[in-house]
Amino acid sequence: MKFATVKTGRPDGSLVLVSRDLSTTVKVTDIALTLQDALDNWEACEPVLQARYEALNAGIVRDTEPLGALTLNAPLPRAWQWLDGSCFMNHGHLMQKAFHLDPIEDADKYPLMYQGAGDNFSGPKDDIVVADATHGADFEGEFAVITGPVPMGSALQQAQQAIRLVVMLNDISYRTLAPREMKTGFGFVQAKGATAFAPIAVTPDELGENWRNSRVHLNMVIHRDGKPFGTVHGQEMYFGFDQLIAHAALTRSLNPGTVVGSGTVSNEGPSVGQACIAELRAKEMIANGASSTLFLQHGEVVTLKATDDAGNSLFGEIRQHVVVENQHV
Amino acid sequence: MKFATVKTGRPDGSLVLVSRDLSTTVKVTDIALTLQDALDNWEACEPVLQARYEALNAGIVRDTEPLGALTLNAPLPRAWQWLDGSCFMNHGHLMQKAFHLDPIEDADKYPLMYQGAGDNFSGPKDDIVVADATHGADFEGEFAVITGPVPMGSALQQAQQAIRLVVMLNDISYRTLAPREMKTGFGFVQAKGATAFAPIAVTPDELGENWRNSRVHLNMVIHRDGKPFGTVHGQEMYFGFDQLIAHAALTRSLNPGTVVGSGTVSNEGPSVGQACIAELRAKEMIANGASSTLFLQHGEVVTLKATDDAGNSLFGEIRQHVVVENQHV
Repeated sequence: MKFATVKTGRPDGSLVLVSRDLSTTVKVTDIALTLQDALDNWEACEPVLQARYEALNAGIVRDTEPLGALTLNAPLPRAWQWLDGSCFMNHGHLMQKAFHLDPIEDADKYPLMYQGAGDNFSGPKDDIVVADATHGADFEGEFAVITGPVPMGSALQQAQQAIRLVVMLNDISYRTLAPREMKTGFGFVQAKGATAFAPIAVTPDELGENWRNSRVHLNMVIHRDGKPFGTVHGQEMYFGFDQLIAHAALTRSLNPGTVVGSGTVSNEGPSVGQACIAELRAKEMIANGASSTLFLQHGEVVTLKATDDAGNSLFGEIRQHVVVENQHV
Repeated sequence: MKFATVKTGRPDGSLVLVSRDLSTTVKVTDIALTLQDALDNWEACEPVLQARYEALNAGIVRDTEPLGALTLNAPLPRAWQWLDGSCFMNHGHLMQKAFHLDPIEDADKYPLMYQGAGDNFSGPKDDIVVADATHGADFEGEFAVITGPVPMGSALQQAQQAIRLVVMLNDISYRTLAPREMKTGFGFVQAKGATAFAPIAVTPDELGENWRNSRVHLNMVIHRDGKPFGTVHGQEMYFGFDQLIAHAALTRSLNPGTVVGSGTVSNEGPSVGQACIAELRAKEMIANGASSTLFLQHGEVVTLKATDDAGNSLFGEIRQHVVVENQHV
């Protein structure tokens, strides 16, 4: 199934099913008002939603609306828990090499993971609102999953079975604020902004062979101000989403609607460009001894899109304008 | 005003007002179903709630129920955002001295703060469920505030005015898991369990002179298994709650119902005992070269209570039993 959430006056919006080809939608508020409601009552909702989804794809439901006619929020506009990993080892290796950082101990044994703010996700077309030009605003293209209930101490298989949905996101990061916060050991608070999501959340079966080993085997294509910035692939994720979920559930249960992210997608192997500005700056530092590419500037546009080998869009597009409140001009 | 939340089948429970002397309660679900609802609509709800609160204290409302007859949850049973500071400098100093840790850089310039999991707070009498005896389960007695909306970039005065409620909590911490997570720089995920709250949330005016300078000037009394463990005082908080809120709002807005904690209460000056086991173990290490006090054991009981100079309880009592799932026996 494919889901989206229409913006309404309420923070959690209104749930719709989206046809497999992303052309059309149908309301499902008689089954579940919001995506959180559907996740909270998945056993009961899932077969009814599935039946309507099949009917939508067969073209036999009434009162459909074209996807393009809707104003969409993040599929889950806020989450009771948002946990973000950093599971593409190439990202850390580049940062360490460029900025002479010590490697993070045991990063190959335990997934790196921080607790993020899930109270206010951005929709796919919402502005990136940056408080101050000096914060070093950056994007990070990531894949993520949304879980059902995960009991404390769940093993890998149970964690894997708790994956309800796959999504794509833009993890807004403030690079000049992160080093101080990392040094405290307490993780990121000021260094992360409102995370933005692509409009469509899909059940793993929708990815077919591209969902393997609890990883998303898709390309993500990033443009900055209309120019290609990166085409990266999800397959190199060092820890799978099942491992991230089991890691997070070691000492506590996870509730339905917990969002677990991969960290910025980054490839050791052949890839074109990168999924965040920080990596390009790291490559420049390694090559030239200095970084020349600027972080996000007022008025710029960032787009992110994931495609399969046939070029089909899986999650729809993130397309955000940058608004810098204090530009010091 | 004083609020509590009755446990129901729903995760957010049902809101009641509690009389100033903590003897009796009245339902307010006709005004706000839950504390989150009240916080989301504070401007509209506040005068109506205030009128009923005055009537409750005057003994002129019907359908009251004794506080003791209710099964209570945390006042806010889950929060869209839970941010915890570490603002009692003595705590860090003790840890550094005992375990030969480097001081955290700039800890006197910027508040230490981590993003916690607010999806599932514990009620005042809920068990502390520990996955494994080796995790080093500990309590931490803290004060906290619950905010209204805080726009991005709010200054101190605006942050101060956004404080709606004051609460007391037990921040469950797993001491053997924390050092590895701190070293990554990503903060605490496995090292924190479900945070438990005292049953009563109060508006700052209820504290009178004991709410000064955005700090809680109250004693907190902690017992472990019936024996006095500590009597500590909130006045030494190095950064006030206004500073914590402004810090968190530098790069993003905070929504109503954001919980901001002080960190474990700890005094440089004269105090008796401490508010967490880790500090006692640190004192033992400094004095004897070894820590002898054990972390929480299966079957133990922890109680926390805050009192004014006259000995009145302000937030009611936290009283939790420890259940260790894997005891390795």
